[in-house]
Amino acid sequence: MTRVDAYSTPWTDVASHLAAGDGLVLLPFGALEQHGPHLPLGTDTATAVAVAERLADRLDALLLPPIHYGDTWNNAGYPGTVSLSPETVTSIAVDIGRSLAASGARALIVVNGDWGNRQPLYTAVRRLNAERILPALALDYPGMDEAVAEVRTSRGAAPGLNHAEEVETSIMLALEPEHVHPERFAAEYPEFPSDFGTRPMQLHPFSPSGVFGDPSHATAAKGEHILAATVEGSLAVLADFIAGLPPR
Amino acid sequence: MTRVDAYSTPWTDVASHLAAGDGLVLLPFGALEQHGPHLPLGTDTATAVAVAERLADRLDALLLPPIHYGDTWNNAGYPGTVSLSPETVTSIAVDIGRSLAASGARALIVVNGDWGNRQPLYTAVRRLNAERILPALALDYPGMDEAVAEVRTSRGAAPGLNHAEEVETSIMLALEPEHVHPERFAAEYPEFPSDFGTRPMQLHPFSPSGVFGDPSHATAAKGEHILAATVEGSLAVLADFIAGLPPR
Amino acid sequence: MTRVDAYSTPWTDVASHLAAGDGLVLLPFGALEQHGPHLPLGTDTATAVAVAERLADRLDALLLPPIHYGDTWNNAGYPGTVSLSPETVTSIAVDIGRSLAASGARALIVVNGDWGNRQPLYTAVRRLNAERILPALALDYPGMDEAVAEVRTSRGAAPGLNHAEEVETSIMLALEPEHVHPERFAAEYPEFPSDFGTRPMQLHPFSPSGVFGDPSHATAAKGEHILAATVEGSLAVLADFIAGLPPR
Amino acid sequence: MTRVDAYSTPWTDVASHLAAGDGLVLLPFGALEQHGPHLPLGTDTATAVAVAERLADRLDALLLPPIHYGDTWNNAGYPGTVSLSPETVTSIAVDIGRSLAASGARALIVVNGDWGNRQPLYTAVRRLNAERILPALALDYPGMDEAVAEVRTSRGAAPGLNHAEEVETSIMLALEPEHVHPERFAAEYPEFPSDFGTRPMQLHPFSPSGVFGDPSHATAAKGEHILAATVEGSLAVLADFIAGLPPR
Amino acid sequence: MTRVDAYSTPWTDVASHLAAGDGLVLLPFGALEQHGPHLPLGTDTATAVAVAERLADRLDALLLPPIHYGDTWNNAGYPGTVSLSPETVTSIAVDIGRSLAASGARALIVVNGDWGNRQPLYTAVRRLNAERILPALALDYPGMDEAVAEVRTSRGAAPGLNHAEEVETSIMLALEPEHVHPERFAAEYPEFPSDFGTRPMQLHPFSPSGVFGDPSHATAAKGEHILAATVEGSLAVLADFIAGLPPR
Amino acid sequence: MTRVDAYSTPWTDVASHLAAGDGLVLLPFGALEQHGPHLPLGTDTATAVAVAERLADRLDALLLPPIHYGDTWNNAGYPGTVSLSPETVTSIAVDIGRSLAASGARALIVVNGDWGNRQPLYTAVRRLNAERILPALALDYPGMDEAVAEVRTSRGAAPGLNHAEEVETSIMLALEPEHVHPERFAAEYPEFPSDFGTRPMQLHPFSPSGVFGDPSHATAAKGEHILAATVEGSLAVLADFIAGLPPR
Repeated sequence: MTRVDAYSTPWTDVASHLAAGDGLVLLPFGALEQHGPHLPLGTDTATAVAVAERLADRLDALLLPPIHYGDTWNNAGYPGTVSLSPETVTSIAVDIGRSLAASGARALIVVNGDWGNRQPLYTAVRRLNAERILPALALDYPGMDEAVAEVRTSRGAAPGLNHAEEVETSIMLALEPEHVHPERFAAEYPEFPSDFGTRPMQLHPFSPSGVFGDPSHATAAKGEHILAATVEGSLAVLADFIAGLPPR
Repeated sequence: MTRVDAYSTPWTDVASHLAAGDGLVLLPFGALEQHGPHLPLGTDTATAVAVAERLADRLDALLLPPIHYGDTWNNAGYPGTVSLSPETVTSIAVDIGRSLAASGARALIVVNGDWGNRQPLYTAVRRLNAERILPALALDYPGMDEAVAEVRTSRGAAPGLNHAEEVETSIMLALEPEHVHPERFAAEYPEFPSDFGTRPMQLHPFSPSGVFGDPSHATAAKGEHILAATVEGSLAVLADFIAGLPPR
Repeated sequence: MTRVDAYSTPWTDVASHLAAGDGLVLLPFGALEQHGPHLPLGTDTATAVAVAERLADRLDALLLPPIHYGDTWNNAGYPGTVSLSPETVTSIAVDIGRSLAASGARALIVVNGDWGNRQPLYTAVRRLNAERILPALALDYPGMDEAVAEVRTSRGAAPGLNHAEEVETSIMLALEPEHVHPERFAAEYPEFPSDFGTRPMQLHPFSPSGVFGDPSHATAAKGEHILAATVEGSLAVLADFIAGLPPR
Repeated sequence: MTRVDAYSTPWTDVASHLAAGDGLVLLPFGALEQHGPHLPLGTDTATAVAVAERLADRLDALLLPPIHYGDTWNNAGYPGTVSLSPETVTSIAVDIGRSLAASGARALIVVNGDWGNRQPLYTAVRRLNAERILPALALDYPGMDEAVAEVRTSRGAAPGLNHAEEVETSIMLALEPEHVHPERFAAEYPEFPSDFGTRPMQLHPFSPSGVFGDPSHATAAKGEHILAATVEGSLAVLADFIAGLPPR
Repeated sequence: MTRVDAYSTPWTDVASHLAAGDGLVLLPFGALEQHGPHLPLGTDTATAVAVAERLADRLDALLLPPIHYGDTWNNAGYPGTVSLSPETVTSIAVDIGRSLAASGARALIVVNGDWGNRQPLYTAVRRLNAERILPALALDYPGMDEAVAEVRTSRGAAPGLNHAEEVETSIMLALEPEHVHPERFAAEYPEFPSDFGTRPMQLHPFSPSGVFGDPSHATAAKGEHILAATVEGSLAVLADFIAGLPPR
Repeated sequence: MTRVDAYSTPWTDVASHLAAGDGLVLLPFGALEQHGPHLPLGTDTATAVAVAERLADRLDALLLPPIHYGDTWNNAGYPGTVSLSPETVTSIAVDIGRSLAASGARALIVVNGDWGNRQPLYTAVRRLNAERILPALALDYPGMDEAVAEVRTSRGAAPGLNHAEEVETSIMLALEPEHVHPERFAAEYPEFPSDFGTRPMQLHPFSPSGVFGDPSHATAAKGEHILAATVEGSLAVLADFIAGLPPR
C-alpha cells in the first residue's frame, strides 16, 4: 500500500484505500500571497504540497488536492494577493473534515503553509475534535525553525518572520526553480514599530517590495535541508497523534 | 500581452497585468466528486481548469489557481467524494471577488465545473454585483449541450445529466488520458423515481457504480469537440458582459 | 376525509386530521411581485394558492395559509415589489417544516409560485431532508411547460420566461378576473444581452412596463387548462414521493 | 385617494399611490396558533388584518398582505400550531422594510397580532430605525386593554393574558362568525406556578384545551367595541409618529 | 454550607459546593449606563450584584462575578455609556449556562439589572430551557414595583420608568453612598411623544441630564426597603422554579 | 488629569475626561478559570485588572470594568471553570469598541489576562482596525516572559506555560494574598504527548490538580517584580501605538 492522490484516482480506489489502510488524510492548505518580485504567488501552496506529499509517502496516506487560498490579510496591500476571510478558511477545513468522516477516514492532518491560516485552522481543528466530527490537527511546520537555524547565513528581518527571504527562496529553489527570478533578488530590512506583532498590521507600509530579509543567500540545498527536517519534525509530532486515534 | 497564471507569477507581474490589461480574472471552480470507477475524483476540476485556461488565452486574462472542492452533496454516498457546504462555496467566491476588487481587477469570471455549485455560485455572483463589490458572472459551460448533441452516440441516463458517461469520459480522454481506466468502462442506466429532479436526492441508491450512461462510446476527439465548443459558447456569452463593464 | 384549511380550523380538528390521515401538508409560497400594469402584485401567490387548493382536495391534505412574499430581487426596480432575502425564504420553509414535524405531519409539500424562490426553497428542502427534520419537496409547477406549449398562441419573450404575458394573464383570468385590467394589455418584447440568464440581472432596464410577451392572447380557458395540467403534473411527481414516505 | 390593497393591485397603481400620498405602509403580522377547540388557528392573523384594514382606510395607506405565521413557541404543544423562530420573524420585517424603502415608502407600520412576535418585531423595528433603513414601528394593539376592561364580564385567567376566552372569541364573533364553534365553548382556568411570566414556558401543561378563561361571555358587539377602540388607540399613537417623519 | 463567591474561590471548593449543595448558580447581569450626573455608570451592576449576593446567602448558592455590560442602546447618546448588542448579551448567558451544565450545576438564575437586557436574556433563557442545556430563568426584580409604590414620594417621569431618580438614587445611597453626588441632584421631567414606549427610542433628546424624575427625595432607608422587598419577591418566584427542577 | 474608573463615575465626568484627555480606554479581559486548589477562579481577571489599573494611572486613561469571563475551553474539565465561546469573546470586544467610538474615545487597549482569549481578541482587534471602527490593540503581557526569567527558581512544566505555578502564585500573593491557600501548595509536572501545543487539547487528563509547575517557590516580591515589568513592557509597546493614532 502506498500514497494515493485523490485528485487523479477514482472513488473506488480511494474507498478501498480508506477502508484497508490507516485512514489518514492529508490536506495541504496554502495561500495566494505576495512573495516579493522574485517568488510566485503560489509559494506557500507549493511548500505545503511538497511537505504533504512527502508525509503521505511516509504514512501511506490519502493526499487531497490543495487549497490554493488562505487568510493573507496582512499582505492585502500587494495587488495579486487574494485572501479568504478567516471564517471561510475555518469553514473549508470543517466541511472537508465532516465529509471525510462520512467517507470512513480516521483522521485529518492539515499541512498549513501560511501564517494567517493558523488561527482559523486552530478554530477548525478545535471544532472537529470538540464536536467529535473527526480527529484532526493542523501542522505549522514543526522542526522548521531548528533547521533554519542550522543553515541560515543572512540575518532575519524580525524574529519568526520568514517571508520571501533566504528561507522561502531556498525552498522554492528546491521545489520549483523555474518559477524563481534570481535576477530580481534584492534584500529589504524594514523598520518595525514597537508594537509590531502585538496587533494586526498591514505589511506593505514597511516593505515596498514584499521582501523581509535577504534572498541572495538562498540555495536549493538549504531548501531541501529545511524541507526534509520539516517532514521529520512533522512525523515526530504525528507519532503520538496517530497512536492516540481510536481503533477501527 | 498574454494570459498570466497567478500561481506561478510574482505579485509585481500580476499587478502590472491587472493595471495594463482589461482586468479580467478567471477562477475555475471544480469539485472532488466521484465519477465512476474509471474517471478520477478531480474530473470536474480538470474540465473547469481546461476551459478557464483556454478562455484566459483568448482574453489575455489573469488565471487563478482552481478551487478543487465544491458542493457535491448528491454524491456523498460514494466514499472519496469530499464536499463543501453551499455556504462555504458562496463565501469562497465572494471573498475572492472582494480581494480582487482591492487588487484593481475589473471583473471576476467563474468557470463552474460542478452542477452542485450552481446555486451557491449564483448566490455569490448576485451578492458581488448587488453590493457593487465587483462585476462577476459564473459560466455553466454555455454551448456544451449543443456540442454534446452533435457528437453523442449513446443514450443519456436522464435529460441534462452527463455524469461519468460518454461526455465526461470523452473530455477526460482529451485532457488527462493517463487518469482514465478504459478497462473499467461499464454502462449503467438507473431507474429514477417520478420526482427525480424535483427535490434534492442522493444518487448512490440509483447507481452503485456512480456511472449514469455509457462511457464506452467516449473518444478524445469528441471530448476535444465539446471543449472547443464550450470555449466558443463562453466567449459569446462574455462578449456583452465585458462590453458592459464600467470603463476604467 | 377531505382537505382541511388550517387558517379557518381549530387546532383540535387539525390535530385529528394529521393523526388520522396521510399527514400531508401543502404550503403555497408566493411573492408580491410586479406583473405589469394589468395584473395584481399578488399574481404569483394567487396561482400557488389555486394549485395548492386543488392538490389538497385530491390528496385530502392539510392546506396551510400562503406566504405572500418571496425572493423577487430581479423585479426590485418596479416600485411595489416587496422582496425577501433568499436566506429569509429558506428560514421560513425550514421553520415551518420543523414545526410541522412536531405536530405529527409526515411530509411538507411546498407549491412554489415564484422563480426567485427556487434556489432558497431548494436549500430549505435539502436541509429538511438531509437533517431528517421532515420529508419535504418543492414543486415548481411540473407539467406547466407542456400545457403552455399546447395552448400558447403568442411568442414568448425568452425561453422559459412567462411573466405578465399570455400565460400568467390567462391564469389570472381563470382565477381572479376582477383583478385583471384588459384595457391595459400591451405587449412588450425586450432585447436581452447575450449573457441574459447566465448571471443575476435586474429586469426593469429591459422592460419598462414589466411585461415580457403579449397578454392580449390570454383567455380564461387557456388559464384553466394550464392550471389543470399543472395539478395533474404535480400529482404524477408526488406519487413516488408519497409512496416513498416512511410508514407511520 | 384611499386605501390600496397591495395584493390585488398592479404595481403601477401602487407606485403612484406611494409617490402621491403619505407613503405609509401597513403590514399585519399574525400567527397560526391554537385558540382552543372553538376558534380557528388563524385568529391572530384575522384580528391583525382587521385592525390594519381599518387603519389603512383612515390613513389612506398601502395595505400589505398579512404574514400568516409568527413566533408561537409557547403553544408548540398543541398540534397544528405552526411557529417561526424569532430570528425569522425579525428577518421578515427587516427585509420588507428594506424593500419598501427602495419602493419609495416613507414608513412601515406593523400591526402585530401575536404576543410571541413582540420581541422579534421590536428587534426588527429597532434595526430598521437604527440603521436608517426606514422609519418603522410595531403596534401591539394600543387601547385594547382599556376597551377590554370596559366590556369584559368574565374573569381573566392571568393578568394581561387574553387567549381564546371572552376577548378573542368576541373579536372573532365580530369578524368571522362562520369560523367560531359556540357549541364547543368551555371555560378553563389553569393553575399557574409562581414563576409564571418570569421565564419562557410551554402552555399546554396548564390548559389541555388551550383556553385561558371563559369564552361563553363573548358577543360580537363586545368584539366590535374592542376593535374600534384599538383602531382609535392606534391612531392616537400614530399621530406623533407620523408627524415626526422626515418630510419628502 | 453557605454562599460561595466564584471569583475568590479555587475550583476544587466550587466543585465540592456544586456537587454537595442544590447546584444553584446566580449571575448578576448589569450594564455600564448613564444614570445622570449624580450616579455612577455602574449603578445597574451594583444593584444586580447586591440582589444576587443576598439571594446567594439565602439559597446557599454559587455566586458568579457580574457581567458589567448590557444592552443599553437607548442611552447611547450619553457618552460613557458602553453597550453590547442584544445578540452578544444572549450569547454570554447561553455560553455561561452551557459551561455551568458541564460543571454539574442544576440551574442558572440570572439577576438582571438593566431594562435593555430583558429581551436578549429572555431569548437566552428560552434557548437554555428549550434546548435542554440547563434550567434557567431571568429575574427582573420581582416585588420591586410594589415596594417602590410604598415608599416613593416624588412623581415618576413615566409609568414603569425608574431611571436616575428617587428609586435608583435611594438604592445607591443604600449600597454605595460614596459614589453618589447629592450636590448634583436635579429633577428632570421630560415631555414624551404619544408613541413613547411603542417603538425603540433614544432617550437623550428628551432628557439632557439623563435623569427621569426627581432624585432629591432619595434616602438610603428607602433604597434598603426596596432592595429587601426585591429579594423577598425574587425568593417567592424562585420557590416553584426550584421545586420544579429535576432531581439529581 | 488622572485615571477615571468608569464603574464608579457619572457619565458627565467620563464624557469630560474623554473630550479633554487623550481618549485612551483600557479594558481588562479576564477569565473564570481553574488555577489549582490554592488560587481562586478569578486569578486571570485579578491580574489583568491590576495591570490595567497601573497602565491607566500612567496614561491618565479611562479604565473600564473587567470582563470576568473568557475562552477557557482547555480547562473545561475542571468544574467551576466557566467559559465563553471564542465568537462571544470577539463580539464583546467589538461591541465595546463600537460603543466607545460613539462616545468619542480615540483608542481601545485590551489588557488580556487569559491565553484562550488571544485568538478571539486578535480577531476583534483586526475587525476594529480593518473596518475603521476604532484603533485598538490587545496586550498579551509584553515584558512578562523576560521578568519571569529573572526571578523564577522552579522549573516550568512546558515552554511558555505559566499556570497555577510559581509565576501566577507570586502574582496573586502580591495582589490578593487573602485568596491564596499556601497550605495547599503542591507541585505537579505532567507528562505531555509529542503533539502537545500543535492542536487544541483538554488539560485535565495531564494534571488532576490543575497545577502545571511548582507554586511553593512563589513570593509576593517576585509577583510584584513581574507585574511592574509587565507594566513597563506594555508602556513600551504602547508608545508607538499612541504616537500613531490619528490626531483629534
